[in-house]
Amino acid sequence: MAETSSVRITCTAPVNIAIIKYWGKRDEELILPLNSSLSISLHQDQLKSTTTAVASPAFSEDKLWLNGQEKSVQESRLQALLHEVRRRAAKRPLEDVQREEEVVESVNSEHRLAPPSWHVHISSKNNFPTGAGLASSASGYACLAFTLAQLFGVRGELSGIARRGSGSACRSMYGGVVRWTHGEQADGADSIAVQVIPESYWPELRVFILVVSDLQKAVSSSEGMRRSVATSRLLQHRATVLVPELLRKAEAAVKAHDFPAFSQLAMCDSNQLHAICLDTHPPIFYLNDTSRQIMRLVHAYNQACAEIRAGYTFDAGPNAFVLTTARDASKLLGLIAHFFPPQTSNSKRYIRGLPLTTDPPSLELQCALGFEPQPNALHYILCTRPGPGPQCIFDNEAHLLNIDGLPGN
Amino acid sequence: MAETSSVRITCTAPVNIAIIKYWGKRDEELILPLNSSLSISLHQDQLKSTTTAVASPAFSEDKLWLNGQEKSVQESRLQALLHEVRRRAAKRPLEDVQREEEVVESVNSEHRLAPPSWHVHISSKNNFPTGAGLASSASGYACLAFTLAQLFGVRGELSGIARRGSGSACRSMYGGVVRWTHGEQADGADSIAVQVIPESYWPELRVFILVVSDLQKAVSSSEGMRRSVATSRLLQHRATVLVPELLRKAEAAVKAHDFPAFSQLAMCDSNQLHAICLDTHPPIFYLNDTSRQIMRLVHAYNQACAEIRAGYTFDAGPNAFVLTTARDASKLLGLIAHFFPPQTSNSKRYIRGLPLTTDPPSLELQCALGFEPQPNALHYILCTRPGPGPQCIFDNEAHLLNIDGLPGN
Repeated sequence: MAETSSVRITCTAPVNIAIIKYWGKRDEELILPLNSSLSISLHQDQLKSTTTAVASPAFSEDKLWLNGQEKSVQESRLQALLHEVRRRAAKRPLEDVQREEEVVESVNSEHRLAPPSWHVHISSKNNFPTGAGLASSASGYACLAFTLAQLFGVRGELSGIARRGSGSACRSMYGGVVRWTHGEQADGADSIAVQVIPESYWPELRVFILVVSDLQKAVSSSEGMRRSVATSRLLQHRATVLVPELLRKAEAAVKAHDFPAFSQLAMCDSNQLHAICLDTHPPIFYLNDTSRQIMRLVHAYNQACAEIRAGYTFDAGPNAFVLTTARDASKLLGLIAHFFPPQTSNSKRYIRGLPLTTDPPSLELQCALGFEPQPNALHYILCTRPGPGPQCIFDNEAHLLNIDGLPGN
Repeated sequence: MAETSSVRITCTAPVNIAIIKYWGKRDEELILPLNSSLSISLHQDQLKSTTTAVASPAFSEDKLWLNGQEKSVQESRLQALLHEVRRRAAKRPLEDVQREEEVVESVNSEHRLAPPSWHVHISSKNNFPTGAGLASSASGYACLAFTLAQLFGVRGELSGIARRGSGSACRSMYGGVVRWTHGEQADGADSIAVQVIPESYWPELRVFILVVSDLQKAVSSSEGMRRSVATSRLLQHRATVLVPELLRKAEAAVKAHDFPAFSQLAMCDSNQLHAICLDTHPPIFYLNDTSRQIMRLVHAYNQACAEIRAGYTFDAGPNAFVLTTARDASKLLGLIAHFFPPQTSNSKRYIRGLPLTTDPPSLELQCALGFEPQPNALHYILCTRPGPGPQCIFDNEAHLLNIDGLPGN
C-alpha cells in the first residue's frame, strides 16, 4: 500500500487586493473580522505564491522553507493552519477506494493522499519581492492551505483553513471577485470566502500596481488593526453601519460591469480605511505624499474625462493599486509614466507585467492635471488583471522540494 | 452735536487654534456649525489682527483696505457682518446721554458713537504673513466685528456678529479657552462663543507653531467642509455622537489643569478631523509628510517621557500647533529644532516669539526617536501661549487710517 513512500504536491495561489477593506478583528485567535470584505484575485501570471509540500512516514518533524530560507514551524498562525488541516483530514470520509478514484481523476496518477499523522516538509516562494507591500501573506497562506488540503485529501470549503493563517488569505482561495463574509458563529464556521464572479465575467478589468519608494517602516496590518479596534471611535460605525451598504453596492456594480460605480466605491472605501488609521491613536500612516499624488492624478484624470475611468485602492502600505479597463489602459499608463517617470537607469524594467503600450498624454491633459512630474517616486509599475484561484501544478520542474523532502540544488 | 465729524477707533483681536474642531455647517448662509468646538485664543504679542474703522457723514460709501491693499466691500460675508452690526446698532437703547457716559468711561474721551447710517472706512492688517495657514480670517473678522461694535455702540453678545464673517472668528472674541456652542435655533441666535477659562487660569500652557514648507495649494476650509458634509459617511457620526463627549472631557481637563488628558484629546480630535477630510470624496489632504513627522516626533517624545508632555493639533493646513507646558518648553523646543533644523542662512530668525532657550536633546532621546533630522522642512517656529481677547487701542500711532478715513503715509 502507498502509505510507505512519500507524497508530494505543488500548488500556486494568487495575491488579492481588497476593494471593500477588512480592518479589525472580532476574534484575534480565530481571525474573525468585524466586517465582510470584497477583493479581486490578481492574475498569477504576474503575482503568485508557489508551495510544495512533501509528506512521508520517514519525516520526524514538520519543516518549512520560505523563499529558500529554512524557518521555524512554531509560528502560531502556521501551527493553527496545520492543526486545522490535519483535524479536517482526520475526519475525511472512509471509502478510500472511491476517494482514491476521485483523486486519480481530479489530480494525477502520481498523486496519492497522505494520512494526517505524517509529518510534512513545506517550501513556499513568491514570484515577487516580499515586503514590497504586495500582501505576500494572503497568497502564501492561501497556497499553503490549498496545497496541504490536496496533500491530505481535505474536501469541501477550504477558505476557513487559509483564514487561520491570515484573514485576507481566505479571499485568495478563489479567482475573480471574492467576498469574505464576516459570519456570526463564535467558532468562525461561517466566516468564509465565496466567489462573487469568476475572472472571466469581467475580462476588461485592469489593475496597475504602482510600487512606491518609501523609507518609513510601516506598522503591520495585524498590529494596526488591534490599535484601531482599541482606539478608533469611527471604526465600529464603519464596520457595522457603513460597510454592509458599501458591500452590497460594490457587488451590484461588479455584476453590472459598472466600472464607474465600482471604481468610485473602491476609492471611497480605501480612503475610509486610511481615515480609520488616522483616527487611531497613535495614528497609523500607510499613505505617503507619493500615494496622495497618485490619488490626485486619478481624480484629475477622471475629471478630464468627465467620467470615472480610473480608480485606486491602497492596502496597509503606500503602494497604489490603480483600477481601470482595457479601453483606458494604455492612455492611463502613459499618463502615470509621464508624471512618475523612472530613473533613466531602470527605465527598461520600469513597466512590467501585461504587455501594454503607453500613450503619451496630450498637452491639454498634462495642463489639466497641474502638477510637476516626480522622477524616482516609484520603483516600478506592474500591469495585471483579475485571475483564477489556486492551481495544482503537474510539472515536475515546478516542485520546490525533492521527493525526499529537501530543497533541490 | 458730535454727529457732524468723523469717529475713529482701532482694535486688535487674537488668532485661535481649535482643540475640538469645527468641521461642517448646518447652515451655510448663517454659518451655523454641525458641532460645538473648543479653542485657545493665542497671545496677541505674537499673533493678532489690527483694525481701524472710521465712520463719517461725509463718506459716500463703505471702503476696505486689507494689509494696505484696497479691496471690494461686496464680498458676501463682509456684507453679512456689516449688515448685522448695523442692524444691532439701529436697535441700541435710546438714552443717548447715559450711553455717551458709558462710552466715555469705558473707552476714552475722543471716542463717540457713530450712527449706523454712516458709511465706514475700514483698514485691517495682520502682524503675521497671511496665507501661511495661520487662520487670519478668524482674527480678522473677530477684529472687524469688535471694532465696528465699538464704533456703532453695539452692546452685549458680539460673537454672533463675528460668526457671520467666519465661523471660527466667533471664538476669537474671547481670550483663554473658548467654546463655540453649535446652538439649536434656526436663526443662529444661540450659536455663540463663551469663555470656558480666562488666559490667566492656566498660565503654564505653551503653543509652538511649526510653519511647514508646503507646495500644495490646499482646498479652502469652507470648500472642504462643504465637500465633507456632502460626501463623508463618517462626519455625521463624529458631529452628533463623538464630539459632544470629546468636548465635555476637554473642558473638564482644562478646568483641572490636566495637560496629559487635554493634550491627548487635542491629538485625537485633530487626527479625527483629518480622517474626515480623507473620508471626503475627492479626499482632502491638509497634512503632508512633514506634518506626519512632527506627529511622530511628539508621540516619540511622550513615549520617551513615559507620560504625555506634548501634543499637537492641525487646522486646514500642514502647520503644526504643538502643545506643551512651561516645564517642558525648552526641552521640546530643543528637540524640534534638532530634528527640524533651519537652513543655516535663516537660522537667526528660525525661532520666534516667546524668548525660550533650546535644550539640545540627549543622545538617548535622539536614539529613542529613530528618525533622521530633516533640514528645511520648516520655515520657522513661533513660540506663543494663550492670551486675551479683543482690545481697544488708544495709541494714536496705532491707527491704520487717518481721521479723514484714508490710509496714512
